[in-house]
Amino acid sequence: MTSISFDDARQRIIAVGRRLDARGWAPATAGNYSARLEDGFAVTASGWHKGRLSEDGVLKLDAAGKVIGAGKSSAETHLHLSVYRLFPEAGAVLHGHSPQAVAMSRAFRDLDAWRFAGHEMIKVFPGHDTHEAEIVLPIVDNSQDMAVIEAAIAPALARPGAIPAYLIRDHGLYAWGRDLDEAERVLEAVEWLIAAELAERSFRESRS
Amino acid sequence: MTSISFDDARQRIIAVGRRLDARGWAPATAGNYSARLEDGFAVTASGWHKGRLSEDGVLKLDAAGKVIGAGKSSAETHLHLSVYRLFPEAGAVLHGHSPQAVAMSRAFRDLDAWRFAGHEMIKVFPGHDTHEAEIVLPIVDNSQDMAVIEAAIAPALARPGAIPAYLIRDHGLYAWGRDLDEAERVLEAVEWLIAAELAERSFRESRS
Amino acid sequence: MTSISFDDARQRIIAVGRRLDARGWAPATAGNYSARLEDGFAVTASGWHKGRLSEDGVLKLDAAGKVIGAGKSSAETHLHLSVYRLFPEAGAVLHGHSPQAVAMSRAFRDLDAWRFAGHEMIKVFPGHDTHEAEIVLPIVDNSQDMAVIEAAIAPALARPGAIPAYLIRDHGLYAWGRDLDEAERVLEAVEWLIAAELAERSFRESRS
Amino acid sequence: MTSISFDDARQRIIAVGRRLDARGWAPATAGNYSARLEDGFAVTASGWHKGRLSEDGVLKLDAAGKVIGAGKSSAETHLHLSVYRLFPEAGAVLHGHSPQAVAMSRAFRDLDAWRFAGHEMIKVFPGHDTHEAEIVLPIVDNSQDMAVIEAAIAPALARPGAIPAYLIRDHGLYAWGRDLDEAERVLEAVEWLIAAELAERSFRESRS
Repeated sequence: MTSISFDDARQRIIAVGRRLDARGWAPATAGNYSARLEDGFAVTASGWHKGRLSEDGVLKLDAAGKVIGAGKSSAETHLHLSVYRLFPEAGAVLHGHSPQAVAMSRAFRDLDAWRFAGHEMIKVFPGHDTHEAEIVLPIVDNSQDMAVIEAAIAPALARPGAIPAYLIRDHGLYAWGRDLDEAERVLEAVEWLIAAELAERSFRESRS
Repeated sequence: MTSISFDDARQRIIAVGRRLDARGWAPATAGNYSARLEDGFAVTASGWHKGRLSEDGVLKLDAAGKVIGAGKSSAETHLHLSVYRLFPEAGAVLHGHSPQAVAMSRAFRDLDAWRFAGHEMIKVFPGHDTHEAEIVLPIVDNSQDMAVIEAAIAPALARPGAIPAYLIRDHGLYAWGRDLDEAERVLEAVEWLIAAELAERSFRESRS
Repeated sequence: MTSISFDDARQRIIAVGRRLDARGWAPATAGNYSARLEDGFAVTASGWHKGRLSEDGVLKLDAAGKVIGAGKSSAETHLHLSVYRLFPEAGAVLHGHSPQAVAMSRAFRDLDAWRFAGHEMIKVFPGHDTHEAEIVLPIVDNSQDMAVIEAAIAPALARPGAIPAYLIRDHGLYAWGRDLDEAERVLEAVEWLIAAELAERSFRESRS
Repeated sequence: MTSISFDDARQRIIAVGRRLDARGWAPATAGNYSARLEDGFAVTASGWHKGRLSEDGVLKLDAAGKVIGAGKSSAETHLHLSVYRLFPEAGAVLHGHSPQAVAMSRAFRDLDAWRFAGHEMIKVFPGHDTHEAEIVLPIVDNSQDMAVIEAAIAPALARPGAIPAYLIRDHGLYAWGRDLDEAERVLEAVEWLIAAELAERSFRESRS
């Protein structure tokens, strides 16, 4: 985990927002991004378009997760904090929204995880050095009670093969890493894998 | 509703046009964008590419909707004005064109509305604080007689669950909000939902 | 038809190339763009990536279509010149390549035209003021002999409802207008319509 | 083959990375790009996001492929070097990752090549001057042992119709050319062809 100042975290979060928006993963005001600081957290404010953040769109929280100064953090800040509690090495958390990830979670409503097998892209995730593996993306049901989601993800993320990401059904992806760069790479890799699985299914159907 | 000067509205509309064009929702000269001013309206001129507007591409209308000065407003200006009449809190209206929204309205020619259920994205729309809801996007048939469209949408928009948007079949989406930013967020959210529903159907078909 | 200087045509063509490339319609060295000048034509040189043209990538031709100075024009320049001969009001011709347009021409190998019906987007094409119409995009077979393509398109473009565009099967779209702006709008509108028809078919299949 | 200095190669590779990332072919840290120098090679360093390379992200190798100075080259550098050995005229190699290319290789697990027939885009590849041809994109199985991949591709690339590119199943595309510009054009053309074949299949399915 890299230590980062609030000012640096703010600039990096603004840049991440622009990139995720360009990919179509930050529609309307959806999404929240955060980074762990030495004495608290930086997190996006509620109600902002994440592709057009300015400095006021990133808040500072104390170590307990309370906003320092003005501004309102999203209710989902609790999900960011739960990742930081579960994974002491996590330095940044990104919550993005792609139509495809949500589509997958809705089309396979009976599944509580998606297994990606045999992809070279698996090596992008920490601790994997071969494509001959299977990784697990936990899928948990959506809830407006953050404690319910937290309770569901903790055991799911302890399963073998779980990657530093999970998908909330009907909602979107959470991904994290040691710093904002790694968290963004994890998010990109998961979205890439979902896009590849959808295209694979389209190619496969055309055979029959 | 925020009050905005004509000059500010002009600059914001030019920026919105660039963003919608980058997403592929402003092909050729399609689309019209407007904002309510204290003493009238700002609206895009007819015949301009909306991704490459300059100041002359945005006209000022008086409170009755008549162009002040030179330039021709689109016939669809009437649809913008009807939204402002129906919804006193509306401060901006955007009319965009995505291939997917039009495709949905044509593939489901028998439907007079699309119901989005269970999406977290529902919370983006004013007055919704849970995903356990169903929102209604009214679909009305296209007509070259604006009065026919106006007559069809007024009751459709009064239905429970109606969001600040409607889809003209074979044509495109109308979306509005208190200001241009909110109208753009509504448009983005509806387009995102349509893209998610299409991808969900592709994933679902691959199961059978 | 607007008269334009060679220098202006050059700058406009470079800008058009960047935009078509950003949309994915100018892969590798594919595509040719031209504009009619008072005393000849401006046309892209053979072998250049059309998204990264510099001034040397646009050649001047005399009224007979012969290159003035150094540089080699593409064999397809003949197709540009044939449009200018057939349509005296044409001031610019764009030849773009989208995967979807080519895919349509290959999947429907038996069709010699695609009919778009009922789309509001029809009004973007000159001479149409209602969506209650049917427009015809002629499809001709590909050939390395430009005279064969020319012979096939002339009658196809005289058919009622033909728009200022045609599709060469396995190859790509030609579109034209009074100037580069109008030609680009025609190209965008045809590509938009093809994308909408493909998405409509995906939505429709999911019903059955 | 054009001779290029290390400094120039570095700048060109950084620009190529930005372009491939914008197209979605450089997710996370995936991808490697290289250019042949008079006295060695320039190659991207391991672990960098290829859309955000700086000068330190491009390493210099000696003629034997050993890094000069600090930094770690990817294990896949061996695949770049094997292309340079097999094809003395190759001046640059690009390894990109699109969801569609990988999807195709997984959906058609029984195929050891994809044949593209009848596309005008075939003419983009060196040595082809008509669309009435068939080109072959070899597909080889993935392996973490680079020697296994090398042994598989050498005979595959000697087959008639083989283009300067191959696809590693579950993994991604390799493409090369006399210089970085040509290699990028080859990569774009192959990705375009795969996108066109997928869209063709979608259109075709909708007929039945």
